[in-house]
Amino acid sequence: MKMPLETPLAQSLPASVPFVGPEAIERRRGRPFAARLGANESTFGPSPRVREAITAAAAEAWMYGDPECTDLRAGLAAHLGCAPDQLVAGEGIDGLLGYVVRLFVAPGDRVVTSDGAYPTFNYHVAGFGGTLVKVPYRDDREDLDALLTAARDSGAKMIYLANPDNPMGSWHPAAAIEAMIAELPENCLLLLDEAYVEFAPADAIPRVALDDPRVIRMRTFSKAHGLAGLRVGYAFGAREVIRSFDKIRNHFGLGRVAQAAALAALADSAWLDEVRRQVAEARDRISAIASANGLISLPSATNFVTVDCGRDGAYARAVLEALEDRDVFVRMPFSAPGNRCIRISAGRPEDLDRLADALPAALKAAKSA
Amino acid sequence: MKMPLETPLAQSLPASVPFVGPEAIERRRGRPFAARLGANESTFGPSPRVREAITAAAAEAWMYGDPECTDLRAGLAAHLGCAPDQLVAGEGIDGLLGYVVRLFVAPGDRVVTSDGAYPTFNYHVAGFGGTLVKVPYRDDREDLDALLTAARDSGAKMIYLANPDNPMGSWHPAAAIEAMIAELPENCLLLLDEAYVEFAPADAIPRVALDDPRVIRMRTFSKAHGLAGLRVGYAFGAREVIRSFDKIRNHFGLGRVAQAAALAALADSAWLDEVRRQVAEARDRISAIASANGLISLPSATNFVTVDCGRDGAYARAVLEALEDRDVFVRMPFSAPGNRCIRISAGRPEDLDRLADALPAALKAAKSA
Repeated sequence: MKMPLETPLAQSLPASVPFVGPEAIERRRGRPFAARLGANESTFGPSPRVREAITAAAAEAWMYGDPECTDLRAGLAAHLGCAPDQLVAGEGIDGLLGYVVRLFVAPGDRVVTSDGAYPTFNYHVAGFGGTLVKVPYRDDREDLDALLTAARDSGAKMIYLANPDNPMGSWHPAAAIEAMIAELPENCLLLLDEAYVEFAPADAIPRVALDDPRVIRMRTFSKAHGLAGLRVGYAFGAREVIRSFDKIRNHFGLGRVAQAAALAALADSAWLDEVRRQVAEARDRISAIASANGLISLPSATNFVTVDCGRDGAYARAVLEALEDRDVFVRMPFSAPGNRCIRISAGRPEDLDRLADALPAALKAAKSA
Repeated sequence: MKMPLETPLAQSLPASVPFVGPEAIERRRGRPFAARLGANESTFGPSPRVREAITAAAAEAWMYGDPECTDLRAGLAAHLGCAPDQLVAGEGIDGLLGYVVRLFVAPGDRVVTSDGAYPTFNYHVAGFGGTLVKVPYRDDREDLDALLTAARDSGAKMIYLANPDNPMGSWHPAAAIEAMIAELPENCLLLLDEAYVEFAPADAIPRVALDDPRVIRMRTFSKAHGLAGLRVGYAFGAREVIRSFDKIRNHFGLGRVAQAAALAALADSAWLDEVRRQVAEARDRISAIASANGLISLPSATNFVTVDCGRDGAYARAVLEALEDRDVFVRMPFSAPGNRCIRISAGRPEDLDRLADALPAALKAAKSA
């Protein structure tokens, strides 16, 4: 019996995983990590009120979630100062990225991103048959002019930009993003991934006209709100663009428990402030640990710090693996020249104690590798 | 500023919602339902152990779920007697249906289903440009021979079959499904949706060779396990087919909380037995209520009972709306001749008391409408 034929596009795709999860590394190692600092999760956890909301929602877990996410969208709309029909909630930014690529990228269409930017976005572009055009980072930041030029030259349907950026932690000021939007080529969408926006300085948040159909912004409860384990993201922009998601999204995909948790997280601004404060402290501590070991940390507007290991990608990889050997999970940027760095999430004090203990020996091991 | 152009396929799609949620009806009515019997949710709830697992997982909600769902797949594999790499877990059967259509249905490919069967499957087929070929029900069951003939005649890539069936509640014995599989045309996949399998008699569950790459079976925690609000489904079949999901799925889409809850549900077989017992009682009670009102209920192998209102679709619609007016939420099959019926989920005794109270007046109102 033969396997039925996949579509030509599906046949062309590798069975790839954009990221190997820390659980897979732990299974390979045969023991758990002591400090989980690789996935930019919020080690400070969701707020106690969110935990209460999840417990309360557990009793209602037999009911499907509202497919229109009415309460959550109303809360988000009030938070953002937009109308509820200018936003859509979904299964994390990852899920929403897949939808937007599916809506706008036909096989052969060009899509511009930075070389070393978010792999899951690239995965979706490839998955719908799009062709990626990659632009190098410049001075460890995404190069806005080069992204625009590449979009213009290639007739791209879409530009992906994360601000603040992952994996470098860098950011552009609002004025630069606004100037970029003014120069967007005809029929080109700017996908502005703001997953880390809660950690950014106020001047990193551009003003975008809410009726501008050329810009879709995405945010998440997985980072600052500590809900990566429930996967709630949202996209907002012009009504006609947001409405298009209804053509293809998994309408009941965002469950009742996740919606309730996200709404509770949105309401607990005191917790968010506290997380921000602890993240700022953790960033300073990571910089100090790096510095004490002769390494330079890059400025960060996120909940992680990217640390320059000072040599090439192979060396940074060796440092990362030596940290893993010492039960500290971190990640590193994929592409040169960013891959001279390792990326360390803002941990709790006890997580960073572990890092501080492990790093000197890890560097020594990497140097002799 | 113009909206960037969607793909030609996306432009062709309506902004449709496969189902209007009960919450939308409640908002329109301005008051909640007293009995929620329309979505075949498990009114008996998730087990207390599952609620404990959700509460415990809330503290870990800051961590992404294992993208490989290793523990859950190991548990399911032991339950099903297969290997872990013969199954994939995902964001409900709805999400998995979308993936399988995307993998196998290219624009213009034919897909066979029953007229009146699961609208969300049809939504996915249309969403990827497939062409639906619909076969009428026969004696309120899916017509296996006609499905096969239509697949053969149209050169279909896929047949969708739900056994037990939604919305009619009917089922085919294992031998009939096995005979159908033996007759599948070349290069045609059978998508066997077993969302209601836990409520079915043992002889409704076919034996399918686990290395047969022409059959994908799908099951869910949304029905018998009472976890619709967390959306966990799984598909199982031959390794080479299951592996293909990794090419396109949202790898981190199934969150840590959902995975923990599903694993706890799988372990609590006593709760499942109790739910089955209560569902069987509820089915008998719904039949008795129907009978007391001069209506005929159809045999059911699910957690709902489809009740023949004895006239046409307009009349059944009037009965449904009259029940809604009396705060009882039910649904009805979409297509003739099934649309002479309403579909009532297995409720708790208090839900069915409400139904028993409302039905006589609802029928009277529908008759005079």
